[in-house]
Amino acid sequence: MLQNLAADQQRVGQLMSSLLSDLTITDPRLLDAMQYSLLLGGKRLRPFLVYSVGRMLGAELTDLDGPAAAIECLHTYSLIHDDLPAMDDDDLRRGKPTCHKAFDEATAILAGDALQTLAFDILAHHPYQHVDTSRQLQLLRELARQSGYHGMCGGQAIDLAHTNKTMSLAALEHMHQLKTGALIQCAVKLGWLCSKDEKPQHLNALQSYASAIGLAFQVQDDILDIEGDTATLGKPQGSDLEANKVTYPALMGLEPARKKAEELVAQAQQALHTLPYDTTELAALASYVIARKF
Amino acid sequence: MLQNLAADQQRVGQLMSSLLSDLTITDPRLLDAMQYSLLLGGKRLRPFLVYSVGRMLGAELTDLDGPAAAIECLHTYSLIHDDLPAMDDDDLRRGKPTCHKAFDEATAILAGDALQTLAFDILAHHPYQHVDTSRQLQLLRELARQSGYHGMCGGQAIDLAHTNKTMSLAALEHMHQLKTGALIQCAVKLGWLCSKDEKPQHLNALQSYASAIGLAFQVQDDILDIEGDTATLGKPQGSDLEANKVTYPALMGLEPARKKAEELVAQAQQALHTLPYDTTELAALASYVIARKF
Repeated sequence: MLQNLAADQQRVGQLMSSLLSDLTITDPRLLDAMQYSLLLGGKRLRPFLVYSVGRMLGAELTDLDGPAAAIECLHTYSLIHDDLPAMDDDDLRRGKPTCHKAFDEATAILAGDALQTLAFDILAHHPYQHVDTSRQLQLLRELARQSGYHGMCGGQAIDLAHTNKTMSLAALEHMHQLKTGALIQCAVKLGWLCSKDEKPQHLNALQSYASAIGLAFQVQDDILDIEGDTATLGKPQGSDLEANKVTYPALMGLEPARKKAEELVAQAQQALHTLPYDTTELAALASYVIARKF
Repeated sequence: MLQNLAADQQRVGQLMSSLLSDLTITDPRLLDAMQYSLLLGGKRLRPFLVYSVGRMLGAELTDLDGPAAAIECLHTYSLIHDDLPAMDDDDLRRGKPTCHKAFDEATAILAGDALQTLAFDILAHHPYQHVDTSRQLQLLRELARQSGYHGMCGGQAIDLAHTNKTMSLAALEHMHQLKTGALIQCAVKLGWLCSKDEKPQHLNALQSYASAIGLAFQVQDDILDIEGDTATLGKPQGSDLEANKVTYPALMGLEPARKKAEELVAQAQQALHTLPYDTTELAALASYVIARKF
């Protein structure tokens, strides 16, 4: 069902690698750090969503390349900064030393900064063939809105503000909707914008889907932090607990959290039913989100 | 000659203040930190360049508002991050505690991140009236290119790599061309893009002007670090020396540095001569850049 996943992961990886190799040498250490973090691997969930939604709607794969690479750069910058000593102070990411551990703090801050800019640069400079200028502008608007104060950055701020404090289930959900959910919503919308589909109700259905899998992803992350093992996770098991983070299992218990994740997946798949397209891949992705072990 | 400067400074200040007040509360501390750094004052040189170039070319002031506010957000994010303990570790900026001193390190990193995103958000969402979508895209391309790896971020990386090391005059110049020059070039191009002027030779002349005043600005900064006083500068006098930074006076002596600044201003004013517009204000700005005491 997810036979495109590996190919898409490889495609966006190669694309980013070639985009980075096009950068002429300004400072080798900064470029190395950007490369290190960007090409470390990872699930490439956001690029896959861009490709999968776009493919379903008949968009050109080559048009989707720009948004796919851009959103992964944006996501990677956020991971580098979240891992910093002043933030979550994490040593491991995807089984490797975090950027500030492999390089140094100043380089990690700068690599994150440059990757954020690169995301907008890629999105703005991509040689689109079937996406008109008005929709190209909308791509940029969407990425800026969902990754900034009203989206991802805002979520990270709420997260920081609640370290060592408790949080209601509603507040936790709101935090995740911004911190992780916003960029997942964004991925889906970027895919839609690259297609010729113009129906707001289709976009709405896709965004309901995205909202549900975004939360399911987070609940599963919290469960894996308890049940997973460090080697498979690529980061220390139990790190949420150690960092005194509020999690779904902590707030509602492990079994109810598992049930919630399943309900969210069902909800995501339900949202797809209204779409007059072949939604098999997106439905399979929803299941994968809670079946994954890392 | 610079009678518009104060009005433009006020205009962009009010605009940014109103843009920030439009942000609904996600996290008050993050918003406070963004506001604190953005509204602390400063010369607003980049917004003034956007306005001044645009005004000269007949662009609408209301169209220039978006690029002016965006570039100041971008510049402010870079100052917040440059001041961080892992970077230049500065306590004072514009006579006030730096963002991480007034708040904390995590908040300062995040405020910088969110201000970078806000710059693209403002530029992408501004309600332009006389700038077509193709030029709106070019505005975004320009900001992304000049502020990223090939521009400002790249310059900061070279700066970091040379702390406690010496540097040739050519290398110092290259570093400043990226670190400060790129965004000053960008300001001029944003102003041009908002106008109806389409002549590449006009843009070239403006960019030669920008390149010269960008360097002159930096040479004067280095001179003020030796000659200025802390109260007027708003940052500790002698901080370059203390941080072991390579400066123009250190490499070439104080008098030759002063002479170089004057030559650069003459060069900037020379570049304006080819333009069939009233360049009085831009010429006056070039003189101001080396006459300023802070």
